[in-house]
Amino acid sequence: MSSDDFRTIWLKPDDPGVVQIIDQRQLPHDFVIHDLGHWSDGVEAIQDMYVRGAPLIGATAAWSLYLAALHGQFPREEVSRAADALLESRPTAVNLRWAIERVLQLIDGVPDGDLAARIRQDAEAICAEDVEICLGIGRAGLPLLEAIAERKGGGTVNVLTHCNAGALATINWGTATAPVYLAHQQGLDVHVWVDETRPRNQGTQLTAWELAKNGVPHTVIVDNAGGHLMQHGDVDIVITGTDRTTRTGDVANKIGTYLKALAAHDNDIPFYVALPSTTIDWQTRDGVAEIPIEQRDADEVTMSYGRHGDERIAVRTVAEGSPVGNPAFDVTPARLVTGLITERGVCAASEDGLTGLFPEESAG
Amino acid sequence: MSSDDFRTIWLKPDDPGVVQIIDQRQLPHDFVIHDLGHWSDGVEAIQDMYVRGAPLIGATAAWSLYLAALHGQFPREEVSRAADALLESRPTAVNLRWAIERVLQLIDGVPDGDLAARIRQDAEAICAEDVEICLGIGRAGLPLLEAIAERKGGGTVNVLTHCNAGALATINWGTATAPVYLAHQQGLDVHVWVDETRPRNQGTQLTAWELAKNGVPHTVIVDNAGGHLMQHGDVDIVITGTDRTTRTGDVANKIGTYLKALAAHDNDIPFYVALPSTTIDWQTRDGVAEIPIEQRDADEVTMSYGRHGDERIAVRTVAEGSPVGNPAFDVTPARLVTGLITERGVCAASEDGLTGLFPEESAG
Repeated sequence: MSSDDFRTIWLKPDDPGVVQIIDQRQLPHDFVIHDLGHWSDGVEAIQDMYVRGAPLIGATAAWSLYLAALHGQFPREEVSRAADALLESRPTAVNLRWAIERVLQLIDGVPDGDLAARIRQDAEAICAEDVEICLGIGRAGLPLLEAIAERKGGGTVNVLTHCNAGALATINWGTATAPVYLAHQQGLDVHVWVDETRPRNQGTQLTAWELAKNGVPHTVIVDNAGGHLMQHGDVDIVITGTDRTTRTGDVANKIGTYLKALAAHDNDIPFYVALPSTTIDWQTRDGVAEIPIEQRDADEVTMSYGRHGDERIAVRTVAEGSPVGNPAFDVTPARLVTGLITERGVCAASEDGLTGLFPEESAG
Repeated sequence: MSSDDFRTIWLKPDDPGVVQIIDQRQLPHDFVIHDLGHWSDGVEAIQDMYVRGAPLIGATAAWSLYLAALHGQFPREEVSRAADALLESRPTAVNLRWAIERVLQLIDGVPDGDLAARIRQDAEAICAEDVEICLGIGRAGLPLLEAIAERKGGGTVNVLTHCNAGALATINWGTATAPVYLAHQQGLDVHVWVDETRPRNQGTQLTAWELAKNGVPHTVIVDNAGGHLMQHGDVDIVITGTDRTTRTGDVANKIGTYLKALAAHDNDIPFYVALPSTTIDWQTRDGVAEIPIEQRDADEVTMSYGRHGDERIAVRTVAEGSPVGNPAFDVTPARLVTGLITERGVCAASEDGLTGLFPEESAG
């Protein structure tokens, strides 16, 4: 967010036995803080998507292990039990495994009585590191927006984004949103077109909510509208996040990202992808051919969640029995990506570009 | 539809004082036949979108004028009153004005006692002509699907379509769907990817319903998914409808069509547009610059209609106060259109292509 003190996960003030999160399922209609008093609450929060976004899932796992050590009668056994359950909570989340393994390694040899304090320290470090990475991405991307503002003589900088690669997916600031928040803080006149992002509506549910909370001007549009806006000069730059980037700069992200990249390319609009370097898959070269795309449940397409009176309910929009396909991600080929915004700077979406910023991977 | 006897509007059997339509707002969950007993019911049906689609709107207007003549104490005055109200019911619908003017011209000089019979005859003619046009489009487009089936050695022909340019938008057969229905009738193994078509969901609500009713294999997808499917060889041809085509072959259609055309082009997949020649705007040359795009109500984006228990209700998916943009159409430049399927045959999306099929317009 545009403020240093926002967090998506934190220790309850005056009660270090409880971790608190935002129940993101209730957004944008209600801001509900949810207590995690036991590690199994953390499993539930990840599984039932109170929290989502790779960095936040990883942090939630680390904090859950802290709760296991703190409240367990036999802390080490409890941490081990919690780790197993957490690993199963979202099987494909890379950061989940990474955070759990990091914590387990760290407590090797630590006396039982020190376990909770040690894990708490590491959970705090995981969060602090994520904030630094997001701020690094923000600082790297900011000049792109400043250059547009200057070219337009101070006119509005129109950013289009897809899905939520925002503060709510991380600990704070987000990835794709970090340059936007920094620009807004500096007084740049920035406006964001928010793709609804069917089927799960992360754009309307999360991105619009966090932009509104920070006073960043924005407009919600259906996923179909972006091409038309680009044809008419209403978009200056596209910035999205990514779940996985290949060594060659191909980008896997929320389904529909590829269509926006095509439209940006067709209208000479820069298309950037913001990413923490931890999401680069240095082993993969051909994103379209090699990255497996998760097929998700038909219910995500057939049922629409929203507010009806005071209730949050789902309505069925697709007829019973209609077959449904639901690929969750697509791959945007590097040739359509103007640049990658990482915590070390901006580079071309290519092997040369990436290994230029990350020379330690150039052997690969 | 794949049967000659389906109609979207008809005289009530055994009661020629009542016209019947399908209340398309209730689809896909309920098939409800709605009686038009008075011309004002026709106005309401058009205004409140019991019926939509240019050809069906025109036919509904003609049948409403018949009801005015039949039931009016002073038939000519009643027809005139009805015509005024109908013209206001959907101000931008071209076929509405066309049908009303056609009927009014025709009854000039006709004795009051013959008015109803005369208008009934013309309403029937309007419907019959529309069926012929759609069948003409179907016959022109069928060889495209046959060629794909042959190339694939009888494998499944995968068609992607956007919005509803189907039987429900016309009297029968539809425009984009006509080649599909004819192919299915002939035993071709054809499967349709149905774009949900946010914000009004015409794909899930109407296209999926009519394909299911006719036993045509199909799969509902969100609008974001088409590009990914094309990248992976799961789409052989795209066929959409259009609201307006320029002299030069630019195509205005439901918002999001342009994005699918870009993806088809990027993957060397043929992109065809089916149209009755009445929707060609011979005066316009540059679609993107010249065709005004209607901005529709924010409610279409913020509220999702569907089935909850036994009720049809709306839930709010976007937070109160979130600004919303809702352009209803976009323009696909001719360079992305492989061909136009008209009732006179298939032609290139260009002035030469169109005036080749319609030489009477070549002077323009």
